[in-house]
Amino acid sequence: MTVSTTFLGLGAMGSALARTASDAGHRIVCWNRTGHRAPSLGEQGAVIADSVEQAIVGTRTVVVCLFDATSVRQVLEPVATGLSGRTVINLTTTTPNQSRDLARWAGERDIDLLDGAIMAVPETIGGPESAIFYSGSAEGFAQHRQLLDLWGESSYLGPDAGMAALYDTAMLAGMYAMFAGFLHGAAMVGSEGVPAGEFVRRQAPFLAAMTEQLADYAATIDQQDYLGPGQQSLRFTETALSTVMQASTGQGVTDEVLKPAHDLVRRQLAAGFGEHGTARMFEELRSVR
Amino acid sequence: MTVSTTFLGLGAMGSALARTASDAGHRIVCWNRTGHRAPSLGEQGAVIADSVEQAIVGTRTVVVCLFDATSVRQVLEPVATGLSGRTVINLTTTTPNQSRDLARWAGERDIDLLDGAIMAVPETIGGPESAIFYSGSAEGFAQHRQLLDLWGESSYLGPDAGMAALYDTAMLAGMYAMFAGFLHGAAMVGSEGVPAGEFVRRQAPFLAAMTEQLADYAATIDQQDYLGPGQQSLRFTETALSTVMQASTGQGVTDEVLKPAHDLVRRQLAAGFGEHGTARMFEELRSVR
Repeated sequence: MTVSTTFLGLGAMGSALARTASDAGHRIVCWNRTGHRAPSLGEQGAVIADSVEQAIVGTRTVVVCLFDATSVRQVLEPVATGLSGRTVINLTTTTPNQSRDLARWAGERDIDLLDGAIMAVPETIGGPESAIFYSGSAEGFAQHRQLLDLWGESSYLGPDAGMAALYDTAMLAGMYAMFAGFLHGAAMVGSEGVPAGEFVRRQAPFLAAMTEQLADYAATIDQQDYLGPGQQSLRFTETALSTVMQASTGQGVTDEVLKPAHDLVRRQLAAGFGEHGTARMFEELRSVR
Repeated sequence: MTVSTTFLGLGAMGSALARTASDAGHRIVCWNRTGHRAPSLGEQGAVIADSVEQAIVGTRTVVVCLFDATSVRQVLEPVATGLSGRTVINLTTTTPNQSRDLARWAGERDIDLLDGAIMAVPETIGGPESAIFYSGSAEGFAQHRQLLDLWGESSYLGPDAGMAALYDTAMLAGMYAMFAGFLHGAAMVGSEGVPAGEFVRRQAPFLAAMTEQLADYAATIDQQDYLGPGQQSLRFTETALSTVMQASTGQGVTDEVLKPAHDLVRRQLAAGFGEHGTARMFEELRSVR
């Protein structure tokens, strides 16, 4: 009998993962809490199990893509004994600490845990734009590389099971901040009747070009060299942010999106770092520990 | 006598503008409040005036690049009569309403006002990456196009003198939000000892790729079609932002950078728009008017 791969959870993302594996010739067994999403996969030759117990029979690998960390534990705990000696690849979105807790729980039950964070949407799984971070079991990553690479570019970030989720959430922080900033700008010009589609023609390439600035910030942070040449001072940035916020409220648009950045800068000014480079906001962010 | 162009203000940006014009063969007369920055331009053949009165003799065009809107008025008011019938190109950073006030003041004195907003740093003036927005006098823009194009790509955004500053500040809003989000993410992974230089290798291309998403947001906003297909719901975004913020505080990093985005989303949820697309945050931003 061919060894099969189990997929628990057939939401949009879970289905995309299962379908990609099935299309590549993997023998798969699927389970979903509410059965309604399963039939389409069944038509493609996948086995649809009625229960989690049934789904893990004869498998060496269990791919989990559920709603949240709580659902993962609820689904796995009743079958923990049956999972002993096998690999669980958790692709459910979790916080770093939730991933670490899951790895600890798995370790105590002799379950090999590989935690993944998907930097893609279901539609792009298997395509060139899909990237997935993994951390936790190095052995699990090495052994399943062929399967993992079907879904996107696979990167292993180390044995700390929380690292994939940490990278994921850190990168999403930047993305959501950028989205909020874009919508804020669109609302500002929108107050004078400029369509967002007109604004984005200038703003999207400008932001893309500005991402080149980030490597300089990173180098400054790693060298802790906030007084090195060519840096925009915190004092200058404070004035610029004040101007932007004043322009915003002057147009009847709330300035709240930029308030935290302004506050971080002002706290650094108050601490006497006005002539230091703007990357020093980094120190203010982590000083809260 | 050849007609000269006057430059008031020789800070880093004003000097770059004056030098670029001088290098291109323009006869220039410069003035700076504190004389110390002038000598290097003088060596290149520029005339250094001792006073603003002297600087505007025989000129048709006055380029102003000073500290802020207040300094512009302080410098121009005493020579207002002498400026009658001439063009003032204001490249000082101002809010839209400050530019509009300046245009009104100028109009009452028969001074032609073109207001500009520079999307560049002094080092890139005259290079291919430099772009400058203009608004206000259409005639002033047309007549000075040869001079303006020396500094960068010139765009005229309309007769409302505030429009250049509005575009400028709206675009900076997105840039600063993105910078703050990047530093937040760097602090998150930094809490586990990951160097910022390691993080930026993944984050910068990811953010650049995500700017492609902005055109979809813009189209959704312009069509007011927040229930159209393929949109990430506000409910989904609320969960994602909560996860990121929880991951952040779990690592000892303040979550304040993302709080406003989260608040905007939650206010839209409370208003009953949970299944609407995330671009609907735009409505919350402008609803504060």
